Amino acid sequence: MNRLAIIGVGLIGGSLALAAKRQGLVAEVIGVGRNPNRLREAQQQGVLDRYTTDIESVGTGCDLVVFGVPVLAFDGLLQRFTRGWDGTGVLTDVGSTKTSVVKEARQRLAQRFASFVPGHPVAGRERSGFEFADAELFRDHKVILTPEPETDRAAVDLVSRLWRSVGAEVVIMPLARHDPTLAATSHLPHLLAFALVATLAGRDDADEIFEFAAGGFRDFTRVASSDPEMWVDICLANSSALRDCLGEFEQQLRYLEEAIHSGDHAMLRKVFAEAKAARDKRFGSRA
Amino acid sequence: MNRLAIIGVGLIGGSLALAAKRQGLVAEVIGVGRNPNRLREAQQQGVLDRYTTDIESVGTGCDLVVFGVPVLAFDGLLQRFTRGWDGTGVLTDVGSTKTSVVKEARQRLAQRFASFVPGHPVAGRERSGFEFADAELFRDHKVILTPEPETDRAAVDLVSRLWRSVGAEVVIMPLARHDPTLAATSHLPHLLAFALVATLAGRDDADEIFEFAAGGFRDFTRVASSDPEMWVDICLANSSALRDCLGEFEQQLRYLEEAIHSGDHAMLRKVFAEAKAARDKRFGSRA
Repeated sequence: MNRLAIIGVGLIGGSLALAAKRQGLVAEVIGVGRNPNRLREAQQQGVLDRYTTDIESVGTGCDLVVFGVPVLAFDGLLQRFTRGWDGTGVLTDVGSTKTSVVKEARQRLAQRFASFVPGHPVAGRERSGFEFADAELFRDHKVILTPEPETDRAAVDLVSRLWRSVGAEVVIMPLARHDPTLAATSHLPHLLAFALVATLAGRDDADEIFEFAAGGFRDFTRVASSDPEMWVDICLANSSALRDCLGEFEQQLRYLEEAIHSGDHAMLRKVFAEAKAARDKRFGSRA
Repeated sequence: MNRLAIIGVGLIGGSLALAAKRQGLVAEVIGVGRNPNRLREAQQQGVLDRYTTDIESVGTGCDLVVFGVPVLAFDGLLQRFTRGWDGTGVLTDVGSTKTSVVKEARQRLAQRFASFVPGHPVAGRERSGFEFADAELFRDHKVILTPEPETDRAAVDLVSRLWRSVGAEVVIMPLARHDPTLAATSHLPHLLAFALVATLAGRDDADEIFEFAAGGFRDFTRVASSDPEMWVDICLANSSALRDCLGEFEQQLRYLEEAIHSGDHAMLRKVFAEAKAARDKRFGSRA
């Protein structure tokens, strides 16, 4: 690749830029953002070769344009980008939800929608910002692509090769499966962790309570240190699947609450043992 | 100390035995359990000096007797222990809940209740069994003691010295504070983690869902790899405080669900940001 543009130089965009440069996959990385001071820092840190705050100026001569922006910001930025786009090259994104992004891309891009490859590197961290960019961030992590029937095969191949080159495992998934799957294993846990910490933080005895929070609580709530803005976007963009999943979880909680209330040792034991078995099967018993 | 008896040689009891022996705090550690093969293994592994399956025979000449058993098993074992107890020495426990344990001890021990020091080392692991015993398990962890007005000061001092000698920080807490505090930061997170994994494990698409579970999910659900039996006991022994705390949490969830449904970006952002700030304040932003 000659030219790679990263729109939104955060943790994911910055890490991809760094990894692509280190692997020699691209001659030039251009960063696009709002804040010229931040972009200059990213350039000085070696994440970018050059940068611009004018998204309408970046759409000429790029082999690949990566939208590394919050999912609710995608549509507006895509609209502005397309005003200056020469129509060449491949577009992709890194959003944690895919339904709204694909719908918006189909509307904005019309017949050029074939050039857009919806993508999601399942490789977050609690920290955000290019300062935490890490060329190894994607190694041994999955990147999910959800191409649609119209999507150009060569575009999917290009994006797949990029991700594989930086160490990721590329998985193709039907669009309809993506958001419910990620709601279950990522979005709902984030919501629950934010909800639990907020509940406790609002109590009069919050300081005492947190003083006795040990390793289990630290692990359980780690995702609640994630960027609030990004996670509001994800919850709203994936509202439907997230609420379905939350409803199932709340029903399970009500069963367990009733079992605790009535002292139903056998029922609790069955549910806890099933949970432990399922988790140990996925991660091993020591992870 | 001359003789220390450990009733229930699991992770906690075994680690305490190991740490006390390594520190030279005790001449002899006697293990008490149901399974002679397991006890022999613990002796061969150097955790115990000797062992017995006859709990009624162990209550003579011990300086300290530690009940390292599930909270719902405490009462029955205390009853059997007292049949052979000479009434000397100090008794303590390591249960994760304290209200039921103290009530039972007061009833069983009558005027000898003064010799019982209710204790809780806040130092669990997901693994259980003496095989995972670790002399360093308690280092830099809190041990909560909840002495009652009748409790002998010298007994509290003895138990405090033991825990400090193995590296723990001893905290004295009023009994009434213990179970609600631990419900919030330990018991509820365990219940939620068990509930989430069980919910997902029950779905038809469980295998696919777990395939895409990444680091955030692994951390969030780590406590769901804990011993089911022990956690059923804790949930039932702390039923009242746990259900209070669960009720607050469910109310918070309903607020958030409504905000997601109505697209209330500002409300979600406020709650998520409060949660992040509280967690980062407690653990730092990178833990």
